[in-house]
Amino acid sequence: MSSSAATVRVALIGAGRIGKNHAEIVARRVPGAALVAVVDPVPGAAQALADSLDAPTAYTDVADALADPDIDAVVISAPARSHTELVVAATAAGKHAFVEKPMAVTLEDTDRAIAAADAAGVVLQVGFNRRFAPGFAAARTAIDDGKIGTPQLLRSLTRDPGPFGADPSRIPQWTIFFETLIHDFDTLFFLNPGARAVRVTAVADALVRPDARDSGHLDTAVVTIQFDNGAIATAEANFSALYGYDVRGEVFGSEGMVTAGDGRSTDMTLYGASGLHVDTARSDTDLLRSAYIGEFTAFVDAVRFGTPSLVTGQDARRALEIALACIRSVETGAAVTLEA
Amino acid sequence: MSSSAATVRVALIGAGRIGKNHAEIVARRVPGAALVAVVDPVPGAAQALADSLDAPTAYTDVADALADPDIDAVVISAPARSHTELVVAATAAGKHAFVEKPMAVTLEDTDRAIAAADAAGVVLQVGFNRRFAPGFAAARTAIDDGKIGTPQLLRSLTRDPGPFGADPSRIPQWTIFFETLIHDFDTLFFLNPGARAVRVTAVADALVRPDARDSGHLDTAVVTIQFDNGAIATAEANFSALYGYDVRGEVFGSEGMVTAGDGRSTDMTLYGASGLHVDTARSDTDLLRSAYIGEFTAFVDAVRFGTPSLVTGQDARRALEIALACIRSVETGAAVTLEA
Amino acid sequence: MSSSAATVRVALIGAGRIGKNHAEIVARRVPGAALVAVVDPVPGAAQALADSLDAPTAYTDVADALADPDIDAVVISAPARSHTELVVAATAAGKHAFVEKPMAVTLEDTDRAIAAADAAGVVLQVGFNRRFAPGFAAARTAIDDGKIGTPQLLRSLTRDPGPFGADPSRIPQWTIFFETLIHDFDTLFFLNPGARAVRVTAVADALVRPDARDSGHLDTAVVTIQFDNGAIATAEANFSALYGYDVRGEVFGSEGMVTAGDGRSTDMTLYGASGLHVDTARSDTDLLRSAYIGEFTAFVDAVRFGTPSLVTGQDARRALEIALACIRSVETGAAVTLEA
Amino acid sequence: MSSSAATVRVALIGAGRIGKNHAEIVARRVPGAALVAVVDPVPGAAQALADSLDAPTAYTDVADALADPDIDAVVISAPARSHTELVVAATAAGKHAFVEKPMAVTLEDTDRAIAAADAAGVVLQVGFNRRFAPGFAAARTAIDDGKIGTPQLLRSLTRDPGPFGADPSRIPQWTIFFETLIHDFDTLFFLNPGARAVRVTAVADALVRPDARDSGHLDTAVVTIQFDNGAIATAEANFSALYGYDVRGEVFGSEGMVTAGDGRSTDMTLYGASGLHVDTARSDTDLLRSAYIGEFTAFVDAVRFGTPSLVTGQDARRALEIALACIRSVETGAAVTLEA
Repeated sequence: MSSSAATVRVALIGAGRIGKNHAEIVARRVPGAALVAVVDPVPGAAQALADSLDAPTAYTDVADALADPDIDAVVISAPARSHTELVVAATAAGKHAFVEKPMAVTLEDTDRAIAAADAAGVVLQVGFNRRFAPGFAAARTAIDDGKIGTPQLLRSLTRDPGPFGADPSRIPQWTIFFETLIHDFDTLFFLNPGARAVRVTAVADALVRPDARDSGHLDTAVVTIQFDNGAIATAEANFSALYGYDVRGEVFGSEGMVTAGDGRSTDMTLYGASGLHVDTARSDTDLLRSAYIGEFTAFVDAVRFGTPSLVTGQDARRALEIALACIRSVETGAAVTLEA
Repeated sequence: MSSSAATVRVALIGAGRIGKNHAEIVARRVPGAALVAVVDPVPGAAQALADSLDAPTAYTDVADALADPDIDAVVISAPARSHTELVVAATAAGKHAFVEKPMAVTLEDTDRAIAAADAAGVVLQVGFNRRFAPGFAAARTAIDDGKIGTPQLLRSLTRDPGPFGADPSRIPQWTIFFETLIHDFDTLFFLNPGARAVRVTAVADALVRPDARDSGHLDTAVVTIQFDNGAIATAEANFSALYGYDVRGEVFGSEGMVTAGDGRSTDMTLYGASGLHVDTARSDTDLLRSAYIGEFTAFVDAVRFGTPSLVTGQDARRALEIALACIRSVETGAAVTLEA
Repeated sequence: MSSSAATVRVALIGAGRIGKNHAEIVARRVPGAALVAVVDPVPGAAQALADSLDAPTAYTDVADALADPDIDAVVISAPARSHTELVVAATAAGKHAFVEKPMAVTLEDTDRAIAAADAAGVVLQVGFNRRFAPGFAAARTAIDDGKIGTPQLLRSLTRDPGPFGADPSRIPQWTIFFETLIHDFDTLFFLNPGARAVRVTAVADALVRPDARDSGHLDTAVVTIQFDNGAIATAEANFSALYGYDVRGEVFGSEGMVTAGDGRSTDMTLYGASGLHVDTARSDTDLLRSAYIGEFTAFVDAVRFGTPSLVTGQDARRALEIALACIRSVETGAAVTLEA
Repeated sequence: MSSSAATVRVALIGAGRIGKNHAEIVARRVPGAALVAVVDPVPGAAQALADSLDAPTAYTDVADALADPDIDAVVISAPARSHTELVVAATAAGKHAFVEKPMAVTLEDTDRAIAAADAAGVVLQVGFNRRFAPGFAAARTAIDDGKIGTPQLLRSLTRDPGPFGADPSRIPQWTIFFETLIHDFDTLFFLNPGARAVRVTAVADALVRPDARDSGHLDTAVVTIQFDNGAIATAEANFSALYGYDVRGEVFGSEGMVTAGDGRSTDMTLYGASGLHVDTARSDTDLLRSAYIGEFTAFVDAVRFGTPSLVTGQDARRALEIALACIRSVETGAAVTLEA
């Protein structure tokens, strides 16, 4: 990119469900961004998405995209287990990188990705979108403004829209921690600014698909996190909310409480013979649309204006530490103390 | 009654649907009250209600009840057209009188009822229950506290629970103004303290039962009232709300707005496949239960402690003036200016 | 524009407060649109706005813009009294035209603008943004789906954010009807699909600035509209809501009720020593941001894909008829019957 | 009591803050009940409360009250540590007993109280009032009706109104579990009907008064409970909610979710310069007034009509088992498995 405020030319890597969402937003909703390429190994997938968004180029091989000098940045929405290698490769090629969560599933990989981006001097942003949801952002502002005093009790939850129709055997083990609750772990850090997690206890089960429990599938979990400022947080997740996609946060402090997320999809209320009715959001891309626009705008702005990444590799690292502690806690049935 | 703080011995006149509600509340929910008699001309009705509430006496003739020296006060929930005569007779007999709205449907009758109570020196309270609903009372407090500044726009509505199943030919003409919207007229005065109504415009129609329009039945109405402080109010009513009983008030002023009434019957919220659901109240006695308890407690307290009536005959008069102006407005198609 | 799905090149006419909002949205938030010029007679205003949005051209003379062959469409956000001439000139020049409300303040001008666009075969869309607000759109969908049966009572309100700081003498007479309530009139037609207005009654006053009443300033109004399907609607407006910008709609029908608009700016709720607190929207561009994006996306899509305008000149005409009837009603103190 | 439907003559034991609340409700709000005596060892306290409610008798010695043949039932609101002995003594004297939570703080005492009531054949009801709050009761009904399917995730919380002004040294150890969270434990059983708790993990701290931590004071706690139907529950409590008294419940199940409790004290909403405002409840007796009336009505009805107690000694026992497990968990830092 020639000048800091020029258009950021973005390649989208991974043309799946969420990749399509991201591509559309980058192509059409983010000031200063242009979607110039789509990359996906599935024959035709990259081309189809590129065509639908007027992106000029489609690649089936990531290496080709990373070698393309007309690409400034990549948005990585490939399968989770490939994230680390893609971040390392992209940043090594001098591309700024937005990577969907989890950036990695080991601390070693996390550090490797961070080091690669640091070495390349490029922007690295992780896909913790909830920070950009207006309600969560307003909650953080209220906390920063001292409106609730010192946080003492926190809660964050994720409920994925049901009915759960996936094949449990195709879902990697510990997905509920690595891919679902990782959002809540980041949210809890976000809403308890400056605090460090010191102790984690997790319980998890297969309540949606109990038949898959023996093969290691877990679809429901509750996590307790204690922080060094005394605050105690609860995170919970479930893979099958029949009423749609639901994310909520709550922080109770010495001076008050703040909540974010109410599951409503509009401000329309319908009153009928069975009572009062409000539509609920059916998907993450529905409920969090403005959050997605916000995170990509932040990423593109960081590239354009040289401002710091708002969601860093270190943010991914501390959330991953919680996820890893959860796994140990589930395996041992005991609380896990985190190192300082 | 021998002493001011002794138990107030109450006779209930009119053992219909709302009379049963009132009798139960007087018998069981009001400190310092005892239901000592039920009066109803329908054979067996008074006795059945009295028995169910352990009231010792049942009368079929009002005159007998009014001659009973062991009755201190009456609650009049007989048909609307008999209210005036019952107030006059009861107060002439030295009984304190609570009368359901409307106290009268002519100004002459209103004045006659007021004069009778004044001459007897007894308490007269009219059944404008909405004032005692917690939300409406809190709205008034907010207004008195200057929280919304000077009222500029007001709204009050009544929606009776549907489906409408009554026989329109048995509903007296102008019932929508005399019996339904009379509540809203009082509410608007209550929420615009000290203001006088100066101009009224009303439109009304038979939208629930258009087949009954030609016989004079009106089940839907919208009224505009202008006050001497400049405030402009809207009142509306409909006889068939499929979602239940709904009363709402709103006052917009120079410094803010206050609303009361949200139609919810509890603080329970249910999320299901069709969205978020909240039960709505199905009847006045459900939605306004605490208001009913409040108004009878106020009446009994006024009797016991000699405090002023909180809903006077003059309150009934000014609400009736609006109802009468509405009728003229509907008949003429023009605004009606009220005399100072 | 060479091909139907190519980028629509838009010129913004009128770089005032709302023009800046529109320019930013067209430049950055609408797929398939490019802001290529800004037009404003104030020295430097067009250039400044164009620069801030990377629009290549700035004009001080509309005629120059209309002569520019590289402009496909115009967004007219100039002062209201110039709208008609701008629509006529722009469409005569072959430009598609989006025009802020009111398109005109006389029926003759309205018809002239419609005829000009028709003759030119270009898209003409009027700025009734509320139709694109998610809650109002969902309300209309619920109505279309029969969820509330036949509309019987409607309400629409507009409260402009206060404190009111404008100079009343610089606000054209009848602005409250032509520029404010015109939104509500359109909303009421939108939420009562297929109905025709038959009778209008309006009252209006200067309650925010009573000192300006004598010079013809009106800042508060209540309007009653009767429709040919029996429905009775109320519209109300006030220029100074201390709590921010507030627009609400409500339709009560034979089977239920639907409401849209709740004044909340996020789903964040703060609980503190004084109770529960929710931020309210402070401006139209805040509350209705997604509606603005929606209306310009619709306009650009109509241009790109040849689809019909979603808010036509006829829509502007029927809303204007109500505004004109309101003026007559205020002047005469009587109801105004509309011609079939 | 001579006949099953006669008035139940109640003595109130313990004329403190909550005792005054209970006395007033029994005296004035419960059909079929009469407050005939107040018992309190503090000189003058019993007499003052009795006088204020027209109760004929005041005792300073419980033994005298239990020997009074004109007392049918007692309401025990004395300090928690005296509850067991009072239940045993009262039931041995043939009195029906309502006892505030906790009925006992050891399982042995619990069983002793249950056995005493069983041997006497009298009604024993425990003060788990939340079951009678309309929202919680409606939630249970929804669950019983299958509206949310099988419970999978539950939450119950208690926030006592702040600022916390008590002397920590005068609060018995483990009060947060025995007296505060005991409500939530019962609520979780109530909202997960038929399930048995199998595993408990608790963390607790002194966040409101960290200076009192070393002396064993705990004012903040989070508890995780696993049930034999797979459901995982969270309970949390804090002693100092600046916004008032707050109790909430939530059950997420295979088919939906239900919540109860929203902290609002009325349906009044105030909009001002700082946004939307709703009053919150300031005390348990404010927020749960109808619940208190409900529980005493249930108790009196059980006495009058011989119906079963709705909150039994066994209910107290299972909630106490959770409290005891919480204490062990806090002491050991490990999960506690409950015996079948």
